[in-house]
Amino acid sequence: MKTLQEELSTRVEAYDFWATRRRYGPKGANNLNLWVLACMDERLPVDEALGIHVDTPAGHGDAHCFRNAGGIVTDDAIRSAMLTCNFFGTKEIVIVQHTQCGMLSVNAQDLEKHFRDKGIDPDNITLDSTLPELKLEKGAFAKWIGMMDDVDVTCMKTVEAFKNHPLIPKDTVISGWIWEVETRRLRAPTLDPEKRARTDVTSVPFGVKGKQPPRWS
Amino acid sequence: MKTLQEELSTRVEAYDFWATRRRYGPKGANNLNLWVLACMDERLPVDEALGIHVDTPAGHGDAHCFRNAGGIVTDDAIRSAMLTCNFFGTKEIVIVQHTQCGMLSVNAQDLEKHFRDKGIDPDNITLDSTLPELKLEKGAFAKWIGMMDDVDVTCMKTVEAFKNHPLIPKDTVISGWIWEVETRRLRAPTLDPEKRARTDVTSVPFGVKGKQPPRWS
Amino acid sequence: MKTLQEELSTRVEAYDFWATRRRYGPKGANNLNLWVLACMDERLPVDEALGIHVDTPAGHGDAHCFRNAGGIVTDDAIRSAMLTCNFFGTKEIVIVQHTQCGMLSVNAQDLEKHFRDKGIDPDNITLDSTLPELKLEKGAFAKWIGMMDDVDVTCMKTVEAFKNHPLIPKDTVISGWIWEVETRRLRAPTLDPEKRARTDVTSVPFGVKGKQPPRWS
Amino acid sequence: MKTLQEELSTRVEAYDFWATRRRYGPKGANNLNLWVLACMDERLPVDEALGIHVDTPAGHGDAHCFRNAGGIVTDDAIRSAMLTCNFFGTKEIVIVQHTQCGMLSVNAQDLEKHFRDKGIDPDNITLDSTLPELKLEKGAFAKWIGMMDDVDVTCMKTVEAFKNHPLIPKDTVISGWIWEVETRRLRAPTLDPEKRARTDVTSVPFGVKGKQPPRWS
Amino acid sequence: MKTLQEELSTRVEAYDFWATRRRYGPKGANNLNLWVLACMDERLPVDEALGIHVDTPAGHGDAHCFRNAGGIVTDDAIRSAMLTCNFFGTKEIVIVQHTQCGMLSVNAQDLEKHFRDKGIDPDNITLDSTLPELKLEKGAFAKWIGMMDDVDVTCMKTVEAFKNHPLIPKDTVISGWIWEVETRRLRAPTLDPEKRARTDVTSVPFGVKGKQPPRWS
Amino acid sequence: MKTLQEELSTRVEAYDFWATRRRYGPKGANNLNLWVLACMDERLPVDEALGIHVDTPAGHGDAHCFRNAGGIVTDDAIRSAMLTCNFFGTKEIVIVQHTQCGMLSVNAQDLEKHFRDKGIDPDNITLDSTLPELKLEKGAFAKWIGMMDDVDVTCMKTVEAFKNHPLIPKDTVISGWIWEVETRRLRAPTLDPEKRARTDVTSVPFGVKGKQPPRWS
Amino acid sequence: MKTLQEELSTRVEAYDFWATRRRYGPKGANNLNLWVLACMDERLPVDEALGIHVDTPAGHGDAHCFRNAGGIVTDDAIRSAMLTCNFFGTKEIVIVQHTQCGMLSVNAQDLEKHFRDKGIDPDNITLDSTLPELKLEKGAFAKWIGMMDDVDVTCMKTVEAFKNHPLIPKDTVISGWIWEVETRRLRAPTLDPEKRARTDVTSVPFGVKGKQPPRWS
Amino acid sequence: MKTLQEELSTRVEAYDFWATRRRYGPKGANNLNLWVLACMDERLPVDEALGIHVDTPAGHGDAHCFRNAGGIVTDDAIRSAMLTCNFFGTKEIVIVQHTQCGMLSVNAQDLEKHFRDKGIDPDNITLDSTLPELKLEKGAFAKWIGMMDDVDVTCMKTVEAFKNHPLIPKDTVISGWIWEVETRRLRAPTLDPEKRARTDVTSVPFGVKGKQPPRWS
Repeated sequence: MKTLQEELSTRVEAYDFWATRRRYGPKGANNLNLWVLACMDERLPVDEALGIHVDTPAGHGDAHCFRNAGGIVTDDAIRSAMLTCNFFGTKEIVIVQHTQCGMLSVNAQDLEKHFRDKGIDPDNITLDSTLPELKLEKGAFAKWIGMMDDVDVTCMKTVEAFKNHPLIPKDTVISGWIWEVETRRLRAPTLDPEKRARTDVTSVPFGVKGKQPPRWS
Repeated sequence: MKTLQEELSTRVEAYDFWATRRRYGPKGANNLNLWVLACMDERLPVDEALGIHVDTPAGHGDAHCFRNAGGIVTDDAIRSAMLTCNFFGTKEIVIVQHTQCGMLSVNAQDLEKHFRDKGIDPDNITLDSTLPELKLEKGAFAKWIGMMDDVDVTCMKTVEAFKNHPLIPKDTVISGWIWEVETRRLRAPTLDPEKRARTDVTSVPFGVKGKQPPRWS
Repeated sequence: MKTLQEELSTRVEAYDFWATRRRYGPKGANNLNLWVLACMDERLPVDEALGIHVDTPAGHGDAHCFRNAGGIVTDDAIRSAMLTCNFFGTKEIVIVQHTQCGMLSVNAQDLEKHFRDKGIDPDNITLDSTLPELKLEKGAFAKWIGMMDDVDVTCMKTVEAFKNHPLIPKDTVISGWIWEVETRRLRAPTLDPEKRARTDVTSVPFGVKGKQPPRWS
Repeated sequence: MKTLQEELSTRVEAYDFWATRRRYGPKGANNLNLWVLACMDERLPVDEALGIHVDTPAGHGDAHCFRNAGGIVTDDAIRSAMLTCNFFGTKEIVIVQHTQCGMLSVNAQDLEKHFRDKGIDPDNITLDSTLPELKLEKGAFAKWIGMMDDVDVTCMKTVEAFKNHPLIPKDTVISGWIWEVETRRLRAPTLDPEKRARTDVTSVPFGVKGKQPPRWS
Repeated sequence: MKTLQEELSTRVEAYDFWATRRRYGPKGANNLNLWVLACMDERLPVDEALGIHVDTPAGHGDAHCFRNAGGIVTDDAIRSAMLTCNFFGTKEIVIVQHTQCGMLSVNAQDLEKHFRDKGIDPDNITLDSTLPELKLEKGAFAKWIGMMDDVDVTCMKTVEAFKNHPLIPKDTVISGWIWEVETRRLRAPTLDPEKRARTDVTSVPFGVKGKQPPRWS
Repeated sequence: MKTLQEELSTRVEAYDFWATRRRYGPKGANNLNLWVLACMDERLPVDEALGIHVDTPAGHGDAHCFRNAGGIVTDDAIRSAMLTCNFFGTKEIVIVQHTQCGMLSVNAQDLEKHFRDKGIDPDNITLDSTLPELKLEKGAFAKWIGMMDDVDVTCMKTVEAFKNHPLIPKDTVISGWIWEVETRRLRAPTLDPEKRARTDVTSVPFGVKGKQPPRWS
Repeated sequence: MKTLQEELSTRVEAYDFWATRRRYGPKGANNLNLWVLACMDERLPVDEALGIHVDTPAGHGDAHCFRNAGGIVTDDAIRSAMLTCNFFGTKEIVIVQHTQCGMLSVNAQDLEKHFRDKGIDPDNITLDSTLPELKLEKGAFAKWIGMMDDVDVTCMKTVEAFKNHPLIPKDTVISGWIWEVETRRLRAPTLDPEKRARTDVTSVPFGVKGKQPPRWS
Repeated sequence: MKTLQEELSTRVEAYDFWATRRRYGPKGANNLNLWVLACMDERLPVDEALGIHVDTPAGHGDAHCFRNAGGIVTDDAIRSAMLTCNFFGTKEIVIVQHTQCGMLSVNAQDLEKHFRDKGIDPDNITLDSTLPELKLEKGAFAKWIGMMDDVDVTCMKTVEAFKNHPLIPKDTVISGWIWEVETRRLRAPTLDPEKRARTDVTSVPFGVKGKQPPRWS
């Protein structure tokens, strides 16, 4: 029979490792060695969609989770993925975008005009005041906003961007998925009109006229 | 007594509004009119820390949640906040960073060297291949990584950056908080040594030598 | 260890099969390969009576369930059984009628008179306006209503009708049962006066005078 | 304070009324005064779809529920609705059909051929051996099977057939609904291509060639 | 605010009263002021049948419960009822017998013969060796066994016997009930053949030949 | 795989056996082959005290339970035990009496006087009007009431009376127990003053003067 | 509607007060302003006995709880009570001792002899090596052990000692209680032989010969 | 199959042993053979901190638990530990003190002055009126109060005092632990400034000036 002293020593040590795991780099990786990129929308429940635990009571999270508007590739997403994949033990990337995304709902040029009308000149804004070295070429503001024409295309292009990025290790497993808000189900991205017909995947049903500024050819 | 026909009409309409809420701009805002910026770390449970529901079964999320490495301001965070505050009804921003953050645990220059050693030249990388117009000045790579010297300082500076950003409406309520991984408690950011002494808030306990590239003065 | 990508692929595929199972004919049969014929009465709880799941949260139903007034054989019941047995994999038929049935409670001739008194001529009605080719001989209206004299006899005759019908495969397993509303128990149909005495199985306790139009000899 | 004797008398009487309610005609109506017509498919959960209780532990059902292949109008459906509306207190009819219905998945002529190939002559079959007075005109067998080209059209035509039928009281409230198997949601029937595009509502995605025998013009 | 001392004094006193309640005669009556007479059969659940608590965790019983073979009147039942009604505050008597009772299942004369065959002479037995003053007239053994011909009659006669007994206060509320084992329901005793037909209430279905020794005329 | 028909046949048969078990004599014994004799007091929870189920939802009782005032031997208790042991399969008798029993709380002579004062002559009462052949000798009324001087003695004498009774089979296992109301615990009956001192086992703490009429020597 | 910022400020402040409450002296008193003195025995459940929460999940304790061998007055108990009553807001003292206490089970002189037999001289021991200024007179070792002759007397004397002690404020509410291990109930201390008879309250049932060294006269 | 008589005998015996276990000395030890010394503070949840059960429903406690102000060694703690280790089977001692302890929050000399100001002369007080043989040297009052300068030092010194005490068996396993109120976690006592920095372990953060009277050198 173990003494309580031995028992308590074991328990105290285990918690200490968890609480300080980021200190151990790859050896202190999250449980699934997983980094998720998802849209910030409240209609996309990451845990339910993927069957994992990204936002749970203290001590139980099992994956790193990056969320931004659209769940798209950005320099910030690359930065965050680069850190977790190279230095904190992550081996897999899962990307989740969703139908009915707000990023499909307006034309980027209109958004840009919104700011100009309020007297803000998007061509002369420091995007991140803590990093003025990051510069956006004049005229690229609307494109920077990241609006989409088609969420399936965006998802496939996002996977591609991560697969080809020099800062992401080549052996990282990378896949992309679409969460259908209408059906509460996950599916692979696709261009098959039949499969896409069930859900709002383009800007058309939102009444958006014209194309968004193109981010890939 | 209502007929079932009337009852069903009401129910069907209510779900439809929820599922398509992003289509209605500010009128289809999330329930708390809230945008959260948090670190992507699995030791930061956003729901538990803030008492909200950002990752819940389909139909119950009540806030937009942006997460990146560090929970810091970036051009992507500004982009996402700009969209939700200007076009989707958000009135409040809450920023949550945490102690024991991986962003405190290594020196950015060492990370940069890691890539150079592998033959990658950080000065000649397209950060986001879908947006080549976004350019980082040569020599700024280490700074771009966003490592911190002090999480409280970073949190306070992050709040400031959002408060002063031209793309964020002036009447947005903005606050910043520190989640203590060691105590599983939230506190306001502070420089008071006594309150900070309880937790790992600087890069010192991680054995980091030297300062990170400065992002504010 | 499986990657999450593999895991998600498996799950997405499984749900897809379920949701589209009727497309696969006999290979997409319901879980019990079962078709139930039951009365539409709310005092007959089909799940409780048979220990199956005919009306359950989406994704869990395990049998096809036909319900009509009386749970009797009709051309519609034959049509539905024919479809499921020949084309959708069903191998067994279970028929459930119940005591205290409303079909015992009035005389069919009185019902017919009810309509005639209101100026409706049952001999000149198109039963199903979408199928005028289906014709009821003059004078057969009361018989068509399907009232019963005796629920046990009706149940046994119903089983017989299905067993002998040319559109039902000969190797289908077919049985009939009586749900006793009074005792909340199931029993086999019987003519044994002792077993029948416990419950209302004929039209006599309902004060019905005379016989219903005979449907079998 | 009531004596237990008084208490027991009340309880015994209440149960007796429930168990024998069909004896009291309109005064012993089901709780919702409702009759439901639904497809017999196990992917259509009637309780979940309508928020009612049609198949529950003994003593709690609140509606009459008719189910057949397709949830379509038939002479049996008219018979059952006629009985509950005229004689058992029902005031409302709700019709529920569903997408992905098996009735969309094959061509009726092919089904007819299936039987002919097995040596059965559909033109010379007694549909219901207990009611030989019910006759189907020669050549109408395929039409009688009740296959659909389009579930929304079928649903709307079904509502119409009930509204116009002489045996159904004119003041009965009647509505029709589509359960989307793909989205697990209810919607009103519609011909709006956008709303229909999300789900399989016609026989086209099932590869059915040609039209089903027409039941309305 | 009460001190804990006051709180504890109150609690200790309350339990003491409960535990010693029989010491206070009528003032320490059971909660329902009720005495139940029931059969000892395990198929008669007294709590479920009457909605009371006669056998519950210590401290929660709310009625006195006498049970014997048949739930019939005996000198012991009179003795027990006399005690609780006159000296322990009881104001109501509820009698519960049940269908399918073992007391209907054999002929008392056969039981008597069973003992004679084993060499026991029922005419010369001291029934209760602690009370030899209680004497049964020769020849009355079979009658003493208390078998029934008809449980409804027995129940009604039992009520009558209590109502007329000089040792039971005249203002005691007394009622009798039949628990139907077949239907798991309670009903009033009755001679109405229709109501009785549902259940085994006489010795006939048990194949008993002849009448039991008569206990009333 | 069994068909549902086979499954239903098995279930229906099993319930039938249970509901009619008393018809099969010893073969239809209760589950524990047990007969309990207990006091009718609501402070004696038979299930909790013995760890059995004597009063449970329909279908789960596992023992016959006789209860009277005191839980003492009477001619009725002998009658009931004789029936279950000889004809219904019972193999064991457990007797439970309890401390603080009301049967210790008054002197039988005072009770007798209570009736005489009200004008009732206990020497001329028919104890059981349905069995006038059962006669109590004049002067034995007080003794018949069954009051106790000492519950442990009574319990041991009760066991003895059952063990020696000619109508109880010799191989019946018989034991007696005392439930301590004060401690909510069961113990064996005893005369050991130390063990008895903890609880009220005699009439002394109730202030009873003199001995009860003796039932054993 | 409160902003989340306001909500979080309130919550953070409330927890801070709790966690640091001892810093605020009487203003940071425990919830019940209560100090409990109890025996250290595992058969005395303080929460159950008093209906309070002395050992609960972090953040919910509502009373200070001192436990030692016997739950008796000692200089340590006075020290602890003095601190909480004078400096930490306590207004009430509750003392709980229990029957079957180990302090009744041996004679103190025998314990002293046990040590002498092992070569330890109790007259020359420093009781508390961190406080050699605390001295026990030679010959007082056995008395110091604190064995009891009678737990009720000890409890009453303990209450008295606290009531009269100069270091305890005069307006402190003080009461003493006995937990009966045998009955799992609380009672006031008493010398009434009847009430004490139920439980082991003296050293007699433990076979202890002679008196313990007297601590009061 | 066991008879119920055998079953009941076993159960009754088992409970008896538990309830009287202190009577059997070392053979009736508590389940963990454990004695805990803890502070009396309500912010120290002993069960949660150690994963044991010291205050549980009657019958389930598994350790002896001594609690005083500070959880420090005193003559009373030695007395209680001596008893359980030598005479009641205890084999292990676990000591738990906690951060934020009230014993760190005031200077003992100030407490002494508090009493002098109220006219009480601490040099002339009988600490324990039931044991006047226990004497504190003049001038030692402040030291006797037991205030701490540093909880880690105190904890380590407390362990030492128990390990070296002649009345505690040499083979007793002894360990000391600190419960961090701030983090709700247990840790070993330490002088490592980094580990201590997280929590209030000295009197400094309480604004205490000067050292407490020294209890060790």
